[in-house]
Amino acid sequence: MKGALLSVNASARLHDLSHAIPPQNVLNTAFFLKASVPYFPPGTLHIVVVDPGVGTKRAILYAEAGQQRFLAPDNGCLSPLFDVLGSPSTVRHVKKRDLWRTPVSDSFHGRDIFAPVAGHLSLGLRPAKLGPVVQDWVRLAIPKPKQTAKGVRGEVIYIDSFGNLITNIPASAVSIRPTSLVVGRRRIQRFAWVRTYGEAKPGDLAVLISSFGYLELAIAQGSAARRLRANVGTAVYIGFHDVP
Amino acid sequence: MKGALLSVNASARLHDLSHAIPPQNVLNTAFFLKASVPYFPPGTLHIVVVDPGVGTKRAILYAEAGQQRFLAPDNGCLSPLFDVLGSPSTVRHVKKRDLWRTPVSDSFHGRDIFAPVAGHLSLGLRPAKLGPVVQDWVRLAIPKPKQTAKGVRGEVIYIDSFGNLITNIPASAVSIRPTSLVVGRRRIQRFAWVRTYGEAKPGDLAVLISSFGYLELAIAQGSAARRLRANVGTAVYIGFHDVP
Amino acid sequence: MKGALLSVNASARLHDLSHAIPPQNVLNTAFFLKASVPYFPPGTLHIVVVDPGVGTKRAILYAEAGQQRFLAPDNGCLSPLFDVLGSPSTVRHVKKRDLWRTPVSDSFHGRDIFAPVAGHLSLGLRPAKLGPVVQDWVRLAIPKPKQTAKGVRGEVIYIDSFGNLITNIPASAVSIRPTSLVVGRRRIQRFAWVRTYGEAKPGDLAVLISSFGYLELAIAQGSAARRLRANVGTAVYIGFHDVP
Repeated sequence: MKGALLSVNASARLHDLSHAIPPQNVLNTAFFLKASVPYFPPGTLHIVVVDPGVGTKRAILYAEAGQQRFLAPDNGCLSPLFDVLGSPSTVRHVKKRDLWRTPVSDSFHGRDIFAPVAGHLSLGLRPAKLGPVVQDWVRLAIPKPKQTAKGVRGEVIYIDSFGNLITNIPASAVSIRPTSLVVGRRRIQRFAWVRTYGEAKPGDLAVLISSFGYLELAIAQGSAARRLRANVGTAVYIGFHDVP
Repeated sequence: MKGALLSVNASARLHDLSHAIPPQNVLNTAFFLKASVPYFPPGTLHIVVVDPGVGTKRAILYAEAGQQRFLAPDNGCLSPLFDVLGSPSTVRHVKKRDLWRTPVSDSFHGRDIFAPVAGHLSLGLRPAKLGPVVQDWVRLAIPKPKQTAKGVRGEVIYIDSFGNLITNIPASAVSIRPTSLVVGRRRIQRFAWVRTYGEAKPGDLAVLISSFGYLELAIAQGSAARRLRANVGTAVYIGFHDVP
Repeated sequence: MKGALLSVNASARLHDLSHAIPPQNVLNTAFFLKASVPYFPPGTLHIVVVDPGVGTKRAILYAEAGQQRFLAPDNGCLSPLFDVLGSPSTVRHVKKRDLWRTPVSDSFHGRDIFAPVAGHLSLGLRPAKLGPVVQDWVRLAIPKPKQTAKGVRGEVIYIDSFGNLITNIPASAVSIRPTSLVVGRRRIQRFAWVRTYGEAKPGDLAVLISSFGYLELAIAQGSAARRLRANVGTAVYIGFHDVP
């Protein structure tokens, strides 16, 4: 992909964002984009190639939202991000084949379509040249937690490279100290409610609000994912009912 | 290596290509180069440091082929690429020590030789300053598959970061739908012959022509390497004799 | 982090140095910095975010030493490097909050403090604007080996991505060929004392002086860490008493 892009614009400045998204995991991609894209300077072109539908009839999108620009498969990966950046001002189908490499392979559109199109955009190509404006695209809902009087039931939606478990439970749902914690089917007897990792003892399970604004489970100098055998989708319940 | 190169040319533009080549695996390196180098713009200097022979008498090559430039250990990693790019127009031994860091370590020529030499080349150094033209270098043959009336016997020659198995069986040898598949000693009862990953059900073994032009075995949203316990070198047989 | 830095200086040239430091491992970080920083051109700004104390009272340092510049948590990661580069000419606490992102998260200072401060420094900000000069910072001693008439007892202080074990035993302590080797509690019956990897047979345990200047244990085309079940901290003893 880097070669194909630099062949169009040898001066393009490329920055690798992540090579650690679990293969074909669109939900993780969506969360990752939501957590990182807003920090980039206006005008950045983000190329997303987590694309389990490559070579099928899934469309390819060019989008602009919150002064950020995107080339991405139409698989929902951008939609949670639009909740943060605001509705996109433009969404187009990337359809005009004259900018693509030929022949286009069936399984590596990153190299044959995304990269050369990105190269041309970086040289100033007008997006209207890519294809028609569309009003509809795949929406992906990051699952919403359920809140009761006694607690909140959510799930793990992202696991970072340290094995920290980031849930879909927002900071606003955890305004008081949790008194019980269940991960999967396992009731956690001991955990530390902390502000940051260093407040927990090495090896202790720390519960905190992540830098993304969601409830996070972490083990200082260890992997919460491995210890709790948790995956994306594992249920997480925090209860407040024991509070005096 | 980055520091040593930037110390010579602070404006050099560096792009990481892969940090995932299995250690010291020259065959994988050769395949990886063959699959990626041709996409780069003319004049790119490719630095290859998969170098199990570092510090021994193996030579270091500077080569030019198909408008691409290379610094690489003389271990065969470039020779399959020359089949694609055409014969090299220049091959030199990198021998003149005045551009190297001193002292030169015995086990990290990437830092002490390749990086500073690449820095000088990026500043316009004439390749003749590196050392003498040579006519001979190590040839590495990517193993060739055997074709019979009933099928083709090849082997896995590359495993990508998703666990997809890329074989040495070219697309031209699979013009009709395979009806049987054997991986290692294991006859695969069920597989889907597809054009791209998304046509297979998650979990199914997909057989397709990879974007590199070779037969590939993949599991949509899973790892074929893990499921089939396959490695580089594992035999792959596809048969057509059951076709009606 | 890249987005936050480029938002301040879109022209900054960023180079990834390592994403493979074991999580929160300050000793590995210190060794890695000592082995790589001296090769960079004068004026390079190194951003270090291995930071188990993020969000606690640990300070953040700006330092200059040997014409290199640093932003790093005050956790000792720089102090072994200062042994190589010489005492720092300036060390400051990064305290002035006006350059930071707001709000500052408790667990991701890399994004909220280090990256924007680095962006401003790359634009020419005078370091005096960051905070006061300090005379004291955390010292981290890389453990020293013990030498006797018969041999040297050290430990593994770094494991590279190949699984090579780098010890704290300096080249100067191994001027003659070792005749015995103990790793952890295990006496190694067979090992090859070599100058570089390629001199050992594939699969053999090679003992050599690493390109960092320390004793290293390696398995050509294999992982010494896995074979010897060694970690950072595993004891390594080499003896010379059997020499005739």
